[in-house]
Amino acid sequence: MTPSALEAVEEIASRVRNRDRRGLARGLSWIEDRTPAGRALLDRLYRADHPAHRVGITGPPGSGKSTIVNELTRRLRARGAAVGILAVDPSSPFTGGAILGDRIRMQDHSSDPDVFIRSMASRGSLGGLAAASIEASELLEAAGFDWILLETVGVGQSEMEVVEAADTTVLVLVPESGDAVQVMKAGVMEGGDVFVINKYDREGGDRLEKEVSLMLELSRELNATGVADRWEPPICRTVALRADGIDALLEAIDRHRAHLERDPERRREVRSRKIARRLRTQLRDRLVGGLVRRWDLEGWVAETTARIQEGKGSPYALVDSLVARLLEEGVPGARDDARRSEGRGAEERP
Amino acid sequence: MTPSALEAVEEIASRVRNRDRRGLARGLSWIEDRTPAGRALLDRLYRADHPAHRVGITGPPGSGKSTIVNELTRRLRARGAAVGILAVDPSSPFTGGAILGDRIRMQDHSSDPDVFIRSMASRGSLGGLAAASIEASELLEAAGFDWILLETVGVGQSEMEVVEAADTTVLVLVPESGDAVQVMKAGVMEGGDVFVINKYDREGGDRLEKEVSLMLELSRELNATGVADRWEPPICRTVALRADGIDALLEAIDRHRAHLERDPERRREVRSRKIARRLRTQLRDRLVGGLVRRWDLEGWVAETTARIQEGKGSPYALVDSLVARLLEEGVPGARDDARRSEGRGAEERP
Repeated sequence: MTPSALEAVEEIASRVRNRDRRGLARGLSWIEDRTPAGRALLDRLYRADHPAHRVGITGPPGSGKSTIVNELTRRLRARGAAVGILAVDPSSPFTGGAILGDRIRMQDHSSDPDVFIRSMASRGSLGGLAAASIEASELLEAAGFDWILLETVGVGQSEMEVVEAADTTVLVLVPESGDAVQVMKAGVMEGGDVFVINKYDREGGDRLEKEVSLMLELSRELNATGVADRWEPPICRTVALRADGIDALLEAIDRHRAHLERDPERRREVRSRKIARRLRTQLRDRLVGGLVRRWDLEGWVAETTARIQEGKGSPYALVDSLVARLLEEGVPGARDDARRSEGRGAEERP
Repeated sequence: MTPSALEAVEEIASRVRNRDRRGLARGLSWIEDRTPAGRALLDRLYRADHPAHRVGITGPPGSGKSTIVNELTRRLRARGAAVGILAVDPSSPFTGGAILGDRIRMQDHSSDPDVFIRSMASRGSLGGLAAASIEASELLEAAGFDWILLETVGVGQSEMEVVEAADTTVLVLVPESGDAVQVMKAGVMEGGDVFVINKYDREGGDRLEKEVSLMLELSRELNATGVADRWEPPICRTVALRADGIDALLEAIDRHRAHLERDPERRREVRSRKIARRLRTQLRDRLVGGLVRRWDLEGWVAETTARIQEGKGSPYALVDSLVARLLEEGVPGARDDARRSEGRGAEERP
């Protein structure tokens, strides 16, 4: 990294610490664009003490997550807490970015200096959005936001990656999301700390609650480990559009936070599991990123694709022999390369 | 790989080629379990000529994908085609495997020797399910199934990874899945070759069709590249439970197949893009897999997690310095290790 680039990182770092909105926006763009400056910034601002409480909110499209986030924000602000909100949306070729429709509802808070809202969109890179949104929440934490709300769209593996990095995971279901089998299909119930049945007044609300409750009971029996003071995920009934049940939801989140903090050993353990998971994911992504920067990965991909199409080998054998070579010898020439090119080498080892 | 393990691979390979059901089931289990035997099997059976047509079918839970798959299967069987079906489900701690509820409807075909149905469940590994289901479809292709239907649950990044590896991607929407914004939110419209509006007779069916059609038009304008003979994704209206509109859907899929095959250059190009994408994904996964096998990755993760919690460094700098070292030098001792341990070394280079 050049001296002027380092200076820019330092400047943004200090603006983020002062919760300067334009500085924050700039830093978040670096993170979304996966730039070396973004990583350098995160390295400087990383808070091992983890002062903020992160709440991940996920559920099917149309289940009312944005309304719930809006209502939670209102209550957290009434307590005087500063709230950072990340709305994690997949991108679309039609908009070229995040969809702002739902954000309009958030205009209640748009003039409040202690609320910061950012929509984050997938830019096509595999798993990149989950990584970027977790990193963005670390930036908001460094900016001194007390609560960080991570709202995702949809319930899938990538969405769960986002919310599992949160301290408290809230799963929002709606009666029309179907019967118990459909809920199980979402395959994410094991990740929930708090369940919300939103639009509870609709037909099927009672039945859905019974099903979720039954499944939680089953899970409790299957995973009975004799641990004292185990967290029992509560089920909250809400009608978010009327702000019904939101107080009880926030209280459930507060209780989960208190549960985590009551036992410092447990808090440490939970954090440590989350850090370890992120280290593995980051390592995977950075290894491939490093291959792109230090080696002609795309050249190898093109050449290997051609070989496969000519019937000269399967992807399985060809990938495995490359992996074996890389692990045994590293990237050919990478060491000399790193020595020669100060700039790029330094980027790799900040 | 030991001689007896190699023999087992050869035996299963020949049973798969003969479409022996128990042999197929065994091979698919190897693939799901991510074993070296599974990779060796795939390497042996890989078909560069890609004789089967793979159809990926995705959409929100409850949109009727299983019913559509059932109806398509009935029609393909009437033509005499052999059909392999992979139902890709996330797992749940409650069932410990794939959910079979929807599969019950498929019992129509359970006694037919030319239909093979397999549910595949996530076993917790990140992105592992997408990889496994693509590999499983390659196994079914080697077994001589003419059509392979890949049905996924949910619409997310991982689901799109599955269906994008298919030749034809069918996106199923339902009126209650909400307005155009919600559809865009699914963020997957760019991936669709054929759109289905199922339960078309419900309220909102017309409106949904108009919205999808408008968005396709918009996308056409944005991506206008002057390519002649461009594929225009059709919108099919179905009421799958009454088998309404399924003939037209199959016809649309046939037309897409014919479109791909009409121009061998285009077919090659499309295939080549898909192979290249898979090479990148596989490389990423195998690099981390290789680190687990050849090095104490978990030891590094534990040690680094502790350092981070003690405030001695951020994950960003620590991951980057490991990646730099690995790319420059490979895994310390891996070369000697590979020489010493014939068995494991051979697994890496089949």
